This record gives sequence, structure tokens and C-alpha cells, in this order.
Amino acid sequence: CLISDEQNGHRALHILQEERRKQAQRSVLISCQVTTNEKKFLKYLSQHGDINKFFFYESYGLYAVVEFSSSESVASLLESSVIPSVSHECVVPFKSRLLWLRNHSLVDSGGQTSGLVCQAQTTTPINELIHRISTQESIEQQMMSLTEASQLTEENSRLRFLVCSLLEDIATAYFPECTITPFGSSVNGFGKLGCDLDMFLNLDNIKGRNMRLPKSGLSLEYQMKRANSERAVTQSILSVIGECVDQFGPGCVGVQKILNARCPLVRFSHQPSGFQCDLTANNRVAMKSTELLYLYGGLDARVRHLVFSVRCWARVHGITSSIPGAWITNFSLTMMVLFFLQRRNPPIIPTLDQLQQLAGPADKSIIDGNDCTFVSDFAKVQLQSNTETLEQLLSAFFEFYATFNFSRLSINIRKGKEQNKPEMSPLHILNPFETSLNISKNVNVTQLDRFVALCQESSWLSQQSRTLNPKKSTSGKNTAMPWGLAALLLPLQVDGIKGRKK
Amino acid sequence: CLISDEQNGHRALHILQEERRKQAQRSVLISCQVTTNEKKFLKYLSQHGDINKFFFYESYGLYAVVEFSSSESVASLLESSVIPSVSHECVVPFKSRLLWLRNHSLVDSGGQTSGLVCQAQTTTPINELIHRISTQESIEQQMMSLTEASQLTEENSRLRFLVCSLLEDIATAYFPECTITPFGSSVNGFGKLGCDLDMFLNLDNIKGRNMRLPKSGLSLEYQMKRANSERAVTQSILSVIGECVDQFGPGCVGVQKILNARCPLVRFSHQPSGFQCDLTANNRVAMKSTELLYLYGGLDARVRHLVFSVRCWARVHGITSSIPGAWITNFSLTMMVLFFLQRRNPPIIPTLDQLQQLAGPADKSIIDGNDCTFVSDFAKVQLQSNTETLEQLLSAFFEFYATFNFSRLSINIRKGKEQNKPEMSPLHILNPFETSLNISKNVNVTQLDRFVALCQESSWLSQQSRTLNPKKSTSGKNTAMPWGLAALLLPLQVDGIKGRKK
Ligand SMILES: Nc1nc2c(ncn2[C@@H]2O[C@H](COP(=O)(O)OP(=O)(O)OP(=O)(O)O)[C@@H](O)[C@H]2O)c(=O)[nH]1
Ligand SMILES: Nc1nc2c(ncn2[C@@H]2O[C@H](COP(=O)(O)OP(=O)(O)OP(=O)(O)O)[C@@H](O)[C@H]2O)c(=O)[nH]1
Ligand SMILES: [Mg+2]
Ligand SMILES: [Mg+2]
Repeated sequence: CLISDEQNGHRALHILQEERRKQAQRSVLISCQVTTNEKKFLKYLSQHGDINKFFFYESYGLYAVVEFSSSESVASLLESSVIPSVSHECVVPFKSRLLWLRNHSLVDSGGQTSGLVCQAQTTTPINELIHRISTQESIEQQMMSLTEASQLTEENSRLRFLVCSLLEDIATAYFPECTITPFGSSVNGFGKLGCDLDMFLNLDNIKGRNMRLPKSGLSLEYQMKRANSERAVTQSILSVIGECVDQFGPGCVGVQKILNARCPLVRFSHQPSGFQCDLTANNRVAMKSTELLYLYGGLDARVRHLVFSVRCWARVHGITSSIPGAWITNFSLTMMVLFFLQRRNPPIIPTLDQLQQLAGPADKSIIDGNDCTFVSDFAKVQLQSNTETLEQLLSAFFEFYATFNFSRLSINIRKGKEQNKPEMSPLHILNPFETSLNISKNVNVTQLDRFVALCQESSWLSQQSRTLNPKKSTSGKNTAMPWGLAALLLPLQVDGIKGRKK
Repeated sequence: CLISDEQNGHRALHILQEERRKQAQRSVLISCQVTTNEKKFLKYLSQHGDINKFFFYESYGLYAVVEFSSSESVASLLESSVIPSVSHECVVPFKSRLLWLRNHSLVDSGGQTSGLVCQAQTTTPINELIHRISTQESIEQQMMSLTEASQLTEENSRLRFLVCSLLEDIATAYFPECTITPFGSSVNGFGKLGCDLDMFLNLDNIKGRNMRLPKSGLSLEYQMKRANSERAVTQSILSVIGECVDQFGPGCVGVQKILNARCPLVRFSHQPSGFQCDLTANNRVAMKSTELLYLYGGLDARVRHLVFSVRCWARVHGITSSIPGAWITNFSLTMMVLFFLQRRNPPIIPTLDQLQQLAGPADKSIIDGNDCTFVSDFAKVQLQSNTETLEQLLSAFFEFYATFNFSRLSINIRKGKEQNKPEMSPLHILNPFETSLNISKNVNVTQLDRFVALCQESSWLSQQSRTLNPKKSTSGKNTAMPWGLAALLLPLQVDGIKGRKK
């Protein structure tokens, strides 16, 4: 899969992104009938050229993603496609690479399903997951199994890039050189199936921007609308794209233009993929954080396994939430895991300052006056030989934050050391690139206290032998009783306390 | 000029439109400095290819319209243009064919103007016009002189098509096969300098709309947003284009999306041209009315002269207004002139029913169930030999409406005969193509009464010998005293009554 360190661990994220983006540009998304015959379907599409890769999945119906070898095939396929004529209804004649397969032959429409293999695009339900990992032999295996079950698949990753590409078609209509790529958990290696799709509209490549004017004689400049700030420009552009997605975007529903947020965005649901999408523009620092997380996740396999386990644990205990509020975010939680790993002895991952020192000239990056430079070449990073097991690390993580002096100290992955808090927010996690900011400013005392109490209980629990050893079911059935990581995902005392307080 | 019958009288409007549209696509609009040296300017632009035609005009600064022989030249010119970098300001990097000329040489920037010839894009002020026509020898000449001074020039017409073309670039970004062309007085032959620019977004040519699906096997359809009506589709599309014009359109200000009107539209001011623009979509009937007016104006030169005189007379007396309200519109007024000309004996122009009978198969047009068929070939229309002079017609026009039985009768250019009013609006002018509608439903009794009173006074005045004969100035100066048509443009008694009533 895209983000597994085995395959791609040694390639910088932006190279991967570019490759995936090109694949997506050669791809189409087709809504099929359940009776679709795979062989006939492929034969029909192959008229337009060779197919590199395809898969089927279900989401409000059956869909296929088809990647051609060449983008001419896509053009040819679109050329042959028709605009639906629905009686008593009209359509907005905006053409995209989202299509519908019609079957006009009588033979196949007999109602029987064709037995197509569908790729799951959603996570395993929590109870099924608990059962599954309870059958594992070790906590280490439980954690790896949880990662395996939660992480984005190759297919889901392709689908994310494809949705970006469909949106890129909308944006390039007005800004031909712009790109839209995923960022955040869709590509940083820590995303789980079903996580939102954060999209980054990059306008930096627009030509003619830094062209030099001649010293003498005549020259021409484009007349362009002026704005007071880059933020205002971003708002303008997102406003138009948002309007277009709302009015034209097939399968795009619930479009909200949230243009007055700190980081203006357009939010919508893309029904054919099932993704909740957030489009932002020129959000370069967030792309840098994404690269940084991707690097950390690729340096040592334990990083991702620990993050997946902690995120899952946090979600089931209501530490994190999909609704914005005073909760700890997945992003903050990941920073806490990274910081914890930097504090091991010897450290499992280097500090951001160390990564900055390893940077080459091509890595140099200053964004709005902030130095966001760090190494992108995995090979340049030498790790220390820490041999702790995932089991030890999970338990140690809970202990670390069960006893952390949150009231006085700040979490700083740049230095890899606690620092005195510069301000009085309950939880202070330094924004790694805009170091005057706290990424967990939103967290209130109640939420922090719950986190600490859950760490305490989980720390205690993870040291009990009843937790540490596999249990056989007392009933005759062949199912295992929850133990190890699974036990930590069951309701805890603290969950009950919260319940009573309500 | 575009609409003079001498030149183009025998070509159907849509052919002319297409030719102008192509010219506009090869053209750019450049904001220049007043010190621009024409020779250097042309030499500089010629690097990119041959120039077919160019002219300069003034509007919030000096502008040049330049038409190249080939659109590759425009592409090359844009390729070499840069995005302005303004300190402390940002720009929306939307590229269009609206450019700025920069002069970097020290020699030319000495402040002296270059003596460029500028084409006027505005009408002669009314008092200057009155003076000018007072020096004419006959009322006929006065009327022709008024047309000459008011009508659109070749350059203004080009500028109108160019502004449409700039907007077409915005629309084709999402609907590649669509076109935007002017309609209404910009092209019907009755437009005066400074009239608004009515634009028609035509989505009918979008490909794949009427392609047939195969009878058997598989086929692909675009997935498209559904809407309840064609009106809803139009609203969606105008909403996006309006947003884009508002946020990106250089020089476009005061953008209003008036989407809930009977005919949804986007209104804005285009500063570089000075045009007030109204963009509507799929407004096919209005395009047909435009063609009809164009045909009537081209059949006999007296039509346009009489319309120009009557429109000017109506404007100075406040019968028409640029503000929407209970006033008679220019469109209604034109219908009244046409009807009057149909009622002459022998008729000067045929009825719409007669024009429909002359139609060939290619002229057939049914729009939303309304038969909008009429002949487009001027040569097929045989006129009767009415020899009345413009002087007679002007006077007769006032008399006709001074005594018209508005309370009982409807004006119907389809039949060329009064009909009984089907409904109780004070003024009833049959919509020629949607015959259940009244195009002057908005007019109230007060406005109609003023019109009638002004017709009465003007009719009486136009029969007085002091009006009918040229006057020499009593002062020693070489200026003529207003007489003839000029006298009808001076304040009348009725204007005074209106003033007292306020
Ligand atoms: N600087 C900064 N960046 C943030 C903050 N929150 C989110 N980001 C960035 O935006 C990206 C997307 O945000 P989210 O969608 O909330 O988080 P995510 O990492 O994608 O995780 P999930 O969507 O919850 O799976 C993150 O990966 C960060 O790079 C913040 O508070 N400060
Ligand atoms: N059917 C119908 N068409 C109208 C009506 N008003 C305007 N139109 C059409 O829309 C066109 C543009 O409208 P206007 O801009 O108001 O009129 P115009 O003929 O362009 O004249 P001015 O702009 O006043 O110079 C007209 O030429 C007609 O074709 C109306 O009430 N009914
Ligand atoms: Mg996210
Ligand atoms: Mg008009």
C-alpha cells in the first residue's frame, strides 16, 4: 500500500504524490450495475486503450475505478459518452470523469449479481476488530493486526487521488497550472479507512508570476483583480470553486464554504467515494507537517503501529471525536506519540532540529518567514538502536502521559524535550513549524483530565497479568476473550465516570 | 458600421454574429499609457503576428483593441505576458485577454501625450446634438444626422463582441462548446452608443446531448447534477459564472446575481469598456426578437431613423429611463414604431405573419412550444412602394399615438392590426413570439398618460410652421436656433406639468 515503509519508505512524499496524481489523471470513476459482467465491462472499456489497473468497490451502489495506460484513452472514452436525457428532468451539462455504465442487452439484466470482487473502503467495526485481535498470540501482533485492518488500502489511496483529480479538473479550468493533492492523514501514513480527505490546492506553479520584466522597451502584464492579502485571494478562489462544486459537481453534496476560518476551506461530501472532503488552498505549512509525519512514520515501523493503536484507543474512549470541539485531535495525539518516542532512551526517532540539520539544499523551505526545512531523504537519517517491543512501548506511552506534568510543561517535537509552557492552555503542544502557536489550544481541562485518567487506567491495566496473557473463551465457542490491546479497547472505569457525570 | 443596411442589409444576423465572434476571439484589450507611441506599440505587438485591425479609445484611461490575423498570435502574446507583482498587494492570478502595457524606456515617459486618435465610445451630449441638428436643412436630414450621431460605431460594436468573448472564456472553461454573443440593442440595429450590453449564453451546442444510445451492449453516460427545470440549470450556471466574474474578472465591478428574475441574469459593470452588462442564458426567444428587429431595421432605412428619433425624443422627455420601473422600455417603444409603420397605407414594413409565410425550411424555429419562425433572407421580402418622407412619418407617429385607443386596443405586430385587449394593463403590446404575454405589462396609467400627452403636444408642435422651418440665430453668432426635430427635443409643456405634479 501507498504508505507502507517496506515499499515506499525511501521515497520522498512529493515524488509519490506526483506519481499518484498522474495515475489519477488517467483514471475514471464509473457507477456500475450490480449485474455488471467484469469481462464484458473490461472488453468494452479496452476499445479506448490499455487498462493498467482497475477495481470495484461499493458505496451507495457499485463503482469501478479504471486506470488507463494513457490519458488519450480517457479522452476517447469521454468523447464517446453521452449526456443523459431523463424525462421530466434536466441536468447541468458539466462533464467530468464520473460516469454511469448502461447495459442495454437483455441477457445480463436478469437480476442475478455477477459475483464481482469488491474492495472494502470502510474500517472493520470495533467489535469485530476486538474479536479479531483477541485471537493473536502477542500484543505486538495485535497492534500490527490493528494497523493492518485500519490503514488505507492501495485502492482507497487511489480513490483519494482520483477524487482530488476530479476536483483538479474544476480548478484547472481557471488556473491551468494549479494542482490539487491530498495532505493530512490521507497520505501521511497514519490515515485509517474512512478518514476525511484533506485536499491542498497549490497555486504556486502559475506561470508568468516570477518572470522578469525587461529593463527597457515595452512589455505586457495581465490585468488582475487586486486583493489586500493572500488570504483574500485564497477566499476568492475557494468561493468560486465551492460554488462550482455545489452547482455542478456530480455526487457532491452538503457543500459549505467556510471562508472565514483561520484557514479558509470548502467542505463537502463526495457520495461516489463516501469521502468527507476539505479543500484548502496555499496551506503550505500543513503540507510540510504532512511530509514530516510521513517521514517519521517511515523511519521505524513501530511509529505507525503505536500511532494506530493509540488513535484507535482514543477514539473508542471518546478522547477524539469527528465533531470539532474541545477534544484532542488526531494530529495532536500523533504529536504526543512522536514526542514520547523521542523521549525513549535511546530515542526511537530523532528530533525535528536534528532532521533540520540533515537537510540538503533542495530541502530548504521558508514559509511565511517560518523555517520549515528538514531532510526528505530517508537514507540520510541514522537511527539509534532502541530495541523496545511494541508491547513495552504501548504500556510506556500510557505511563508517560499518566504522569506527565501538563500544567507546567509543553510538548515540543522540535527539541524532543519538555519545555516550560509559554501560555496557560491546559494542553500545550508546540506547532512544529509555527513555533509561536499551540496546536492543541482548543483542548479544555475536562478533556485533558479524561485523557490523563484514561492513560492512568490503561497504564495500570496494561501491567496486569490478566491483561497481558491471551484468554481462551470459557464458553465452548472458538472465540477468544479480549486480552492485551483488545482489553484496553473495552469500556474502562473512566468511561463509566464520564457517564455518571453527564 | 455593423448594422447599417447598406453594408450588411442582406446577411442574416447569425452569420454576422459568428464572424464578429471569431474576430473577437483573435483580439486583445490593452490598457495603455497616454504617452504610448503608436508606432512602437504596433511594432512591439507585431512580434506575435500580423495585426488585422486596431483602435484606441478612452474609458477610465486609454485602451487599445487589437485584432490579430490568427489566434496563435494571441496565445503567443499571452505566453509572453507576466503576472504583476505589486508590493503590499496580492492579485488573483486569473489570466485573461485584458492586459496592461508597461513602458520601461525613459525616453517616452516624459509626460507628453502622443496625440493618438481615440474613437469615441459615448454619445454626443443632448445639447450638442440639438445644436448640431439645428444646422441641418431638413427634418429628414436632422433625423439621419441624429441616427449618425447615436448609432453604434464599427469600433463600439467590436468592443461589445470583445467583452462577450472575454466572458465566453470564463464560460467555456466549464462548458467548452458554449458561446456568448450579444443580443438586444447591441446588435439589432437600434442600439445607441452607451446602451447596455445584453449577452446571451448559448448552451445548445454542448456535445453528447443528443447522441443516440446503442440498442444493445454497454454504453457510458456522464453523471450530472439533476435539476427540476431548465430554469434551475440556468440559475446554477449563472451563479457560478457570476461568482467567477465577481471574484476573478479584471475590471468587472458591481456584480449582482439576479437569479430569481423571470429571466435569471448576472449584471455587472465592465470598467475597461464602460459597458453595463447583463448576462442571460438560454434566452432563445430574446435572440429571436433581436433577429426580428434586425430584419425590420434592415428592410427600409426609414425604420431605423424613425426609431432613433423616437427613442431620443422619449429619453429627453423621461418617457424611457435607465432605471427599471413603470416606464415604457425602448423595446416596447420600438414595437410601437414598427406597428405604426405596418399601419401606414401602403404599409412600410410587412407584418410578422407575412414574414412567417416567407420563411424557408432553415428558418423554422419552435421555442418552448412557441412558433418563432420567420424569414431571415432579406431578399425574399418584397416591400410595398410607400414614399412618405421621414418628416411626414415623424409627425404622423405622434398623431397616431396621440389618438390611439389604448384603453380598448392592443398593439400587435404579428397581425399588423389593432386587436381587442385580452387583459386590463394600461398599455398592451403583444409579445410577438409568446403571444399570451404583454411586453409592456410594467407600464402604469401615469406613464402611459404622459406618453400620450407628449405625443399630442409633439404632434401639434410638428405641424406648426415655426417648428417646420429652419431658424437663424437672432444673435450675431453662427449658431442655428432649434427647429424641426430639435424643437421636439427641447422641454415641452408636458414636461413642466410633470414637474409641478412632483
Ligand atoms: N499547524 C497545524 N496544522 C494542523 C492543525 N490541525 C491539522 N493540521 C494539519 O492539517 C492536516 C489535516 O488535518 P486533520 O484532517 O484535522 O488531521 P489529519 O492528520 O488528517 O487526521 P484525521 O483527519 O483526523 O485522520 C494535519 O495532518 C496537519 O498537517 C493544527 O492545529 N495546526
Ligand atoms: N419577450 C420580451 N423580450 C424582451 C422584453 N424586454 C426585453 N426583451 C428582449 O431583451 C432584449 C434586451 O432587452 P433590453 O436591454 O431591455 O432592450 P434593448 O432592446 O437592448 O434596448 P436598450 O438596452 O434599452 O437599448 C430586447 O432587445 C428584447 O429582445 C420583454 O418585456 N419581453
Ligand atoms: Mg484529515
Ligand atoms: Mg439592451
